[in-house]
Amino acid sequence: MSRWKPDAAGRLVKAAMTLFDERGYEATTVAEIAESAGLTKRTFFRYFADKREVLFMGSAQLQDHWATAVRNAPPDVGAIDAVKVGLDAVAELFRERHPLARIRARIIAANPELHERELIKLAKLADALAAALRARGVADPAAELAAQTGVTIFHSAFGRWVRQDDPEALRRLMDESLADLRAVVAG
Amino acid sequence: MSRWKPDAAGRLVKAAMTLFDERGYEATTVAEIAESAGLTKRTFFRYFADKREVLFMGSAQLQDHWATAVRNAPPDVGAIDAVKVGLDAVAELFRERHPLARIRARIIAANPELHERELIKLAKLADALAAALRARGVADPAAELAAQTGVTIFHSAFGRWVRQDDPEALRRLMDESLADLRAVVAG
Repeated sequence: MSRWKPDAAGRLVKAAMTLFDERGYEATTVAEIAESAGLTKRTFFRYFADKREVLFMGSAQLQDHWATAVRNAPPDVGAIDAVKVGLDAVAELFRERHPLARIRARIIAANPELHERELIKLAKLADALAAALRARGVADPAAELAAQTGVTIFHSAFGRWVRQDDPEALRRLMDESLADLRAVVAG
Repeated sequence: MSRWKPDAAGRLVKAAMTLFDERGYEATTVAEIAESAGLTKRTFFRYFADKREVLFMGSAQLQDHWATAVRNAPPDVGAIDAVKVGLDAVAELFRERHPLARIRARIIAANPELHERELIKLAKLADALAAALRARGVADPAAELAAQTGVTIFHSAFGRWVRQDDPEALRRLMDESLADLRAVVAG
């Protein structure tokens, strides 16, 4: 095995998801994930603290991409539109991940502890978006409410995305979610 | 000590909050809480699995009151208005709890593990409200979006309620939150 492998993290994620799907999350070991990716356990632990973190690497990337896009939105754009600009970056991030996202959703739905971790990550995502909005000069409660609304839209659209077959649908589903939410709050 | 004491659970909550506030959450024991309430440890464990659950008894009551009110709202009322009807029941539930709610908010903000537990309870509250809306015939995604929006409004208003001095303000703050959220999503 060569000592340097391109995209080791990406290969570990793919190997882990495949094994989680085939054998179950609990039954899969870090050694098996590393072996299946053609890497060592030591390389695994360079990227992930444990096998659970493999499932949540995408959550950290999601938060980074979205909050950065909110910070960099044109200065004249309002709170909800800055949140919406970020959805383009989010859709781009997930474009090629539909098969893995579907497996991940099944694993998380089947494991209450992972489901709780997911809920906490979503709440922290809302906190990060609110901080990005405050950095743009949006005051509370608007910053908090726009950030939480963004996460609500994302979560609803993402749940529908992984339950249907079109990998390209995420952007459209997020737009539909915002339109649905606007109709709901208008009463 | 008589074997029967009225409102043992309420007295345990009040004693626990006072001790948590004075000595810190970590440093307070179940034995001290029971003693301070004039009750036995055995009585404590009849109501609560552990001292953490004392902080979350209100979360369960909140969910019951709110979901029941949504279920019992007049049949011609739409999703967001059914959620809003529930806020009357919620404001009534918390009317007399302002001093304890302020202590509780400080304890939870100071302890990351309790904060995570709080986030999970809020997510489960949204699930319960969505189920209550579906029982009224509201389809998804409207049920999910209206429920999550209700929790967003509640959470934002509650956070402001415990940071100000008027115990009666919760109902008004929740109405303001909904108005703010409507303005935010309108863009």
